[in-house]
Formats: sequence, structure tokens, C-alpha cells
Amino acid sequence: MTSFLIIGHTASTDPSFSLNDLPGKAGRMDLLCRTVSSSLFLSHGIRQNIICDILLLGPPYPGRLIRFIGNEIKNLSPDERNIASFIKIGLAIPAGKTFRQASQGLYCRKAALADLLAEQEYAVLDESGTDIRTVPAENIPDAFILSDNRNYTEEEQSLIAGLTEFSLGPAIVHADHAITLLLNETDRRKSGWN
Amino acid sequence: MTSFLIIGHTASTDPSFSLNDLPGKAGRMDLLCRTVSSSLFLSHGIRQNIICDILLLGPPYPGRLIRFIGNEIKNLSPDERNIASFIKIGLAIPAGKTFRQASQGLYCRKAALADLLAEQEYAVLDESGTDIRTVPAENIPDAFILSDNRNYTEEEQSLIAGLTEFSLGPAIVHADHAITLLLNETDRRKSGWN
Repeated sequence: MTSFLIIGHTASTDPSFSLNDLPGKAGRMDLLCRTVSSSLFLSHGIRQNIICDILLLGPPYPGRLIRFIGNEIKNLSPDERNIASFIKIGLAIPAGKTFRQASQGLYCRKAALADLLAEQEYAVLDESGTDIRTVPAENIPDAFILSDNRNYTEEEQSLIAGLTEFSLGPAIVHADHAITLLLNETDRRKSGWN
Repeated sequence: MTSFLIIGHTASTDPSFSLNDLPGKAGRMDLLCRTVSSSLFLSHGIRQNIICDILLLGPPYPGRLIRFIGNEIKNLSPDERNIASFIKIGLAIPAGKTFRQASQGLYCRKAALADLLAEQEYAVLDESGTDIRTVPAENIPDAFILSDNRNYTEEEQSLIAGLTEFSLGPAIVHADHAITLLLNETDRRKSGWN
């Protein structure tokens, strides 16, 4: 499995957030929805070997982790509004320190970045990192952290300091676009493309 | 300038389409919105050298071409709902055979694929094409056609037969993801990355 963890610094943790204002009152939820979409969707199907975790740090309950699992999720569509409706379902269940299932392939728990870093080894997608195309396939890790439209906070930077950093190209792109580029690279390696 | 032309086989041409049902009643307008987003948006800005054309072939006026110009457009946000609101503005003006400006950087005209192919030389992004990574920079064209979630119709296939085809990788991806991959390739070439 390949895992993506996307930090949503302002993303609402109120399950009643409006589907009609994802960028505004829901705290750039639109961007997180697009990262779920680019993590999971192929043209005619769902990537089976992907876990997409979004860490929602907005009010009123900052620190909710929503997990989408590719080989379990059902009835997900790639549009932002549909994905946001799944996030609402995840936020609506009582959250504890371990994952609870909200619906098939959809889970929620409480989490802080420090917890997640203690549980799994991540790499960072960052424009200052090593060009992913130069990295041997066996050195491409299977878990990546990305930020939303905001830079990492100072606290986050101190937590992720020392993680391996990979760059995807000369332009600084949105997190969902970065995921698309990373998956293209791993698709190519697995299929023997250069 | 690099141009993308995305064919929306079912996309509504009724300017009153609902922003709350882009995938359904608006005819997979969500997908077209994401292609506009991936064509135009960098992390913190708009790509200045991009034209994104979407050809809407759904009812009631099939054959409306909406053009977004990167170095002119203002106040565009990357979320589907905002982009759809621009498309509604484009559809609301009277359409003739030449472009009329609907707002800054946003234009609309009547068009059929045959017209557009007669006006500009396009390449096709298709999984059966030449791997884009193997193509010398000078041979990468500056206009590309992509389809939405549907395959090209027989009539479209006959029109585009013979156009150069480029592939982006082994997986068949959504049109918006294909645009992200193509732009990464051209970004790399322009910046001296391999």
C-alpha cells in the first residue's frame, strides 16, 4: 500500500459544514477533497493499493484524521462535493484514539501529527527535495506527507525535520497535483516504464 | 502559450445548471472544472501561458466553447464550484461563431470539433501514444486534445485520426490528472530538469 497524509490546517471538524462553501467556511476542504480524488481515482476505477489520510486541524475539534482505503471504499465519486459528503460521515461518528469505521472503507480517529509520525515512517514531498525521477524504485517510500495551501507550521517543521524529502519538478504545485505526479512515477516504476 | 481542449460530451450548455449537482444534471461538469483547475493553477498563482478550452456538447445548445486565458483571468479559485460559476457566466452571453468576452479572461463561442481542428494543430493525449518522456522538447506540441470520462465518438475518432498521440504513463488517468502530468513534463523541459 502507498499512503498519503495531507494536513488540512484550517479544515473544519464540524460534521455539519456546508457542502456549498468548501473553500470558505469549511476551511479549504475543497483542496483536501481533491487530494482524496487524486489519490484514489483512475479513469475508470479506484486505486486499490492506496490509503489516503486527511488530518483536519480546523475548529471545533482540531485533530480529526479521516482515512479512505482504496480497496474497501464504495460509491465514492471523484467530485469535491461527493468526497466532502464522505468526510462529513467520518466526522459524524464519535472519535477515539483508534480508528472507528464510519462506512465501508472510511474511518475516523483523533490524531496529532506527532502521533502519526511515531506510528509510521513518512517522506515529505517538498520542492527542496531530491528529484523523484532520480531515485531508484527500491528507495521510493510508501508513505508521504503533504501540506494543504499553507506552509508547515514551525511546530510541524520541527516534527518533520530529518524526514527524506522528494521533489516532483521545478514548479510548486497544489497537493493534489503532487499526488498525481508521485503516483505516475510509481506507476511507471511498477510497469517497467522509465 | 500551451492550449488544452477538453471535450465534455454531456456537459450542460444551459447557463442555469445547478452548482449543487455538477456530476449529474450538469453532465460531468465536475470533471471539466477539474481540467480547468489543473490547467491553470500553480500552488500560489495562475499559469500565465495557458489557454484552457472546454467544449460543451450537452443540451440544450450543444457546441459551446468556453475559453479561460491564464494571463487574463481574474478571481478564479481552484475549486469546482467556483470554476463552474465562471462557466455559467460564459454560457450566459449570446454565442456567435467568434469568441465574445464574458468577463476578463473568459470567452465563449459556438464551435464543433471539426472547426477547431481546422484552426489549430493539436496532439492527442492517449494511452496508446508515444511516451512523452522520450520526446525531445522541440517536438512537444503546444496544443492538446483530451476527452472527458467518455471515449471519443466514432465521428470524433475519424476527425482526430492521424494526429500525433502522446502517452503519459501506464495507467489510464482522468483528464485533469493527464494535464497535470503533461505540464510537469513541460515545466521540467523549460527548467532544464530531465
